[in-house]
Amino acid sequence: MIPAAHLYFLQFLLEEVHHISDVLSLPRFAHLDKEQARELLASARQLANQEMAPYFKAMDDTPVAYDGKGNVLTHSCLKTIIPLSAEQGWIGGNAAFEHGGMQIPEMIFGTAHHLFQMANNGVEGYLGLSSGAAGLITSFGSPEQIQTFVPKIFAGEWQGTMALTEPQAGSSLTDITTQAIPMANGEYQIKGHKIFISGGQHEACSNFIHLTLARIPGAPAGVKGISLFIVPKFRSDGNGGWEDNDVYCAGDFQKMGQRGYATTHLVFGDKDNCHGYLVGEANKGLGYMFQMMNGARISVGLCAASVAMAAYQASLQYAKERPQGRLPGEKDPARPPVLIIEHADVQRMLWTQKVIAEGSLSLGLACNKLYDQVHGSTGAEKEKYHLLLEILTPIIKTYAAEQGSRSAALAIQTLGGYGYTTDFPVQQHYRDLKIMSLYEGTTGIQSLDLLGRKMIQDKGKAFAALMEQVQADLNRASLDPRLGSAAQKMGELGLVIQDTLHQLQPYLEKGQTERFLADATVFMEMMSTWVIGWQWVCMGLAATKALDAGVPGKEAFYQGKIQALGFFVKYEIPHAFAAGQTLVHPEHFTAETNWERFD
Amino acid sequence: MIPAAHLYFLQFLLEEVHHISDVLSLPRFAHLDKEQARELLASARQLANQEMAPYFKAMDDTPVAYDGKGNVLTHSCLKTIIPLSAEQGWIGGNAAFEHGGMQIPEMIFGTAHHLFQMANNGVEGYLGLSSGAAGLITSFGSPEQIQTFVPKIFAGEWQGTMALTEPQAGSSLTDITTQAIPMANGEYQIKGHKIFISGGQHEACSNFIHLTLARIPGAPAGVKGISLFIVPKFRSDGNGGWEDNDVYCAGDFQKMGQRGYATTHLVFGDKDNCHGYLVGEANKGLGYMFQMMNGARISVGLCAASVAMAAYQASLQYAKERPQGRLPGEKDPARPPVLIIEHADVQRMLWTQKVIAEGSLSLGLACNKLYDQVHGSTGAEKEKYHLLLEILTPIIKTYAAEQGSRSAALAIQTLGGYGYTTDFPVQQHYRDLKIMSLYEGTTGIQSLDLLGRKMIQDKGKAFAALMEQVQADLNRASLDPRLGSAAQKMGELGLVIQDTLHQLQPYLEKGQTERFLADATVFMEMMSTWVIGWQWVCMGLAATKALDAGVPGKEAFYQGKIQALGFFVKYEIPHAFAAGQTLVHPEHFTAETNWERFD
Repeated sequence: MIPAAHLYFLQFLLEEVHHISDVLSLPRFAHLDKEQARELLASARQLANQEMAPYFKAMDDTPVAYDGKGNVLTHSCLKTIIPLSAEQGWIGGNAAFEHGGMQIPEMIFGTAHHLFQMANNGVEGYLGLSSGAAGLITSFGSPEQIQTFVPKIFAGEWQGTMALTEPQAGSSLTDITTQAIPMANGEYQIKGHKIFISGGQHEACSNFIHLTLARIPGAPAGVKGISLFIVPKFRSDGNGGWEDNDVYCAGDFQKMGQRGYATTHLVFGDKDNCHGYLVGEANKGLGYMFQMMNGARISVGLCAASVAMAAYQASLQYAKERPQGRLPGEKDPARPPVLIIEHADVQRMLWTQKVIAEGSLSLGLACNKLYDQVHGSTGAEKEKYHLLLEILTPIIKTYAAEQGSRSAALAIQTLGGYGYTTDFPVQQHYRDLKIMSLYEGTTGIQSLDLLGRKMIQDKGKAFAALMEQVQADLNRASLDPRLGSAAQKMGELGLVIQDTLHQLQPYLEKGQTERFLADATVFMEMMSTWVIGWQWVCMGLAATKALDAGVPGKEAFYQGKIQALGFFVKYEIPHAFAAGQTLVHPEHFTAETNWERFD
Repeated sequence: MIPAAHLYFLQFLLEEVHHISDVLSLPRFAHLDKEQARELLASARQLANQEMAPYFKAMDDTPVAYDGKGNVLTHSCLKTIIPLSAEQGWIGGNAAFEHGGMQIPEMIFGTAHHLFQMANNGVEGYLGLSSGAAGLITSFGSPEQIQTFVPKIFAGEWQGTMALTEPQAGSSLTDITTQAIPMANGEYQIKGHKIFISGGQHEACSNFIHLTLARIPGAPAGVKGISLFIVPKFRSDGNGGWEDNDVYCAGDFQKMGQRGYATTHLVFGDKDNCHGYLVGEANKGLGYMFQMMNGARISVGLCAASVAMAAYQASLQYAKERPQGRLPGEKDPARPPVLIIEHADVQRMLWTQKVIAEGSLSLGLACNKLYDQVHGSTGAEKEKYHLLLEILTPIIKTYAAEQGSRSAALAIQTLGGYGYTTDFPVQQHYRDLKIMSLYEGTTGIQSLDLLGRKMIQDKGKAFAALMEQVQADLNRASLDPRLGSAAQKMGELGLVIQDTLHQLQPYLEKGQTERFLADATVFMEMMSTWVIGWQWVCMGLAATKALDAGVPGKEAFYQGKIQALGFFVKYEIPHAFAAGQTLVHPEHFTAETNWERFD
């Protein structure tokens, strides 16, 4: 159960750290004020606690199953949760009024979804996918496509999906082979296999709208020949009815986590009777899909942060209630045991979880704010927001996924042996979390995106914009004695990042792209630690401001943020410097050609 | 399946790195030569592959279940595997001839168990527990106790267990409350609850011999009042028959991993009819139990290394077979995809797994060698081996468990989305591994043991002995240009460890024990990385020696070891220095008393 106190923390992030007022003052959101934003989140928490949390374990205990005949059997709770969430606006509520949405800013919409992810990350997946798929149709689809598909998705009657991955291609979209053959009526015959299709089929929706990548014969090779299609499970028969569209579900992958979330294998056009509707222009599919994918990457990052947060809160609660052992100084066995939260190592585990979960969440909300700002501004402003969002997207995705897994491991460890049993939720959080480093581009791919594109494109414009933003916050922090030493250490790390990039650049200039990118993942470790450190500086700034203004009864909350910043600097930042040393180490170990050396 | 090539690696470790000849030349092992040792391991591999590996997934798919009536339902394969393993000597084969054992050195016995752990770590648990329990009885039990219990355990008919943990006490053995009330006949009435009792009941054995810690009324408080009892499920009725001994299994914990391995809740003396037999002297139970526990800690470390090794090998095989994507320089989508092992990031993940899994395994075998040497020597020699074993025990346990989990995460990541599905074993390795940081004392407890006892007892004698040993190996390595820079970096890290200890010492001297120990886990990170680095230096030394002597057709294998040492220095060692910075950082964050700061 998400405690009411968590809403206070979200308020702190949204209002005091990330200044949601900047977003609410945009014309698009004139219909909303801060109070209404708070109310929306309060109602989202209620929905999360009342309708989603109760099924978190149950959906894991009775995983999604495939009946061998094309049907995917899911927990019956979905039949209540999906329409109820839709009714309250949590499918597509971020869409424009004109498309039937509620024009809720991403900052609020994403935060509501964060609450759902905390309560039951499997359930949230269905909602998030539908929102994303509908968003893609409203952005690039024809008015007719929008009218046909979007309202049903928003109502929760139909499920939207992303159908990208194919068995032979995996992450390499260049190699997808699903075919789209033009028909006389302007539609396309779709034929191919897609795997790992989340929400690809289940029992709670009556139709499935697959946003599908495929190739039209004669299209250019590689990613420049990929088009985007709407491929429904049931298509209009032209007479107001719906007929089977030859999309067959051939299986559901059983997974170590997110066991209540369907991960399907879909076969399109096995009977050569699968119609797809081209979205936008031919061969521009990947670009369109990247809108959804970028959103999905932030959403996966937020989900990882949310699950880590849920695990943190569960372990914190346990640590406050469980007596065990005595402090090192205490030699008298007749004295009663202390609460485990009193043990230094338990506190270390709690602080570590806190800096990871809260830091990631803060970055996720920062990304959602940038999304709102990109869409609410023009010119140089818009470009700046866009650059920041571009560079932060792989970082939120990766940091939250990788460090979130580490955080959830510490949640288990805090509970000791109990944490490993299914009597407690933390082991489920740990299992669920592991998929976040695989979804929507693995950690390796995100890291290539960061170092190989975002850091260097346009002469490093995006990094420069980020550096400027971070430096401005560090400058402010350096004026406050409570934050000064943290700001200094963060400044030093920023210089090391610049220097590292500088030392790697010659490889790029000499055309040694592979060598330049070889340790992209290590670069991601360094860079993402710096970015999360920046989020903690921002939280520190907001906390000192609040404390100075006076926050009766809430002092400890704010002091905890300043302390967490200090903890991050002491325990986490040194590893970013260590990653820097690895990156500039002259020896090169990852271009081995003799596989026997791995034996 | 464990490839035959793995036996070559074990041979390298046992013969070339750790000089098993030192052990085989001890009088106790005069009956064995190197060839026989190899044959024993070859037959253990066969047993592992033929009888254990086929049930690894099956035991996970149909987890241990409790029927609500005192019975624990396990996979039927145990009924074959346990007696077969016993027959081949893998239960108690390390015991003395006089006790019905085969006097197999721990170096071989542990390595055979490593093979079982690789194939099916749940199954190995049952065998290892029985060996350990029988070992405790042979060490401290009366001749009659040995005669009554040990042969049946060695035959695999009865299962031995360790019954320490109680619900209210967890890791704090000081607080156990199970009672042992003396009876007129010299036996004791046992009464209490024990939880998390591995192998506490199942269908493959007809009796369960619980080595149980309990208190005799009037015993001193705390750990000085704990006695050790043999408590069988069925006791002798004195007439050659067996009667129920009032040990009731009240449940089986469902776990996220090791789902085929029973983790029971036992109730002793619910009907006041549970007899226990005191082992050795009263109130000395914890000391006795520590023999088993120390062995179990090394064994858990080895198990973690073994599971990480199995995951590594599975991901390596996948990487060699799966084509996907192209190298960064390649822009032509018409060119065929490369094998994923060609990608730098995949190689980074493979090297990382290799240095963790092979490094941990090497340390585990080093510990087993020390065990053999402690028992095969006297005087100053014996003391040296004992000190080394003492300081290395918490390290092998913790490094292998914590880094093994990280390693298995990389195995999943290497397979991409497939790695998360139950179609592949790596996700099971990942789930199974997580318990290793909890078994037999959590990471926090091992770290307190290392910093609070092993590093400082007797003026740091154990650390000095280790440092001397490591330094001798570094000196040798520094003479070889292929190893020199690694030796230098390792030497620097050794100095930082000494310096860190020096900087922490004043806390201890001022009686600030809590402050001294606050970051014991971070100290463990630093220290264990150094120790594994040392293992890699030892492997490097053996590899250069072999290459210099000539190893036709095996050059790549040996070169891979030298390369792995280099990789460890570049990628892992910097984080040990980072941990050192954390340790000497003056601010102290883990003595918080206001829990609201965690909100």
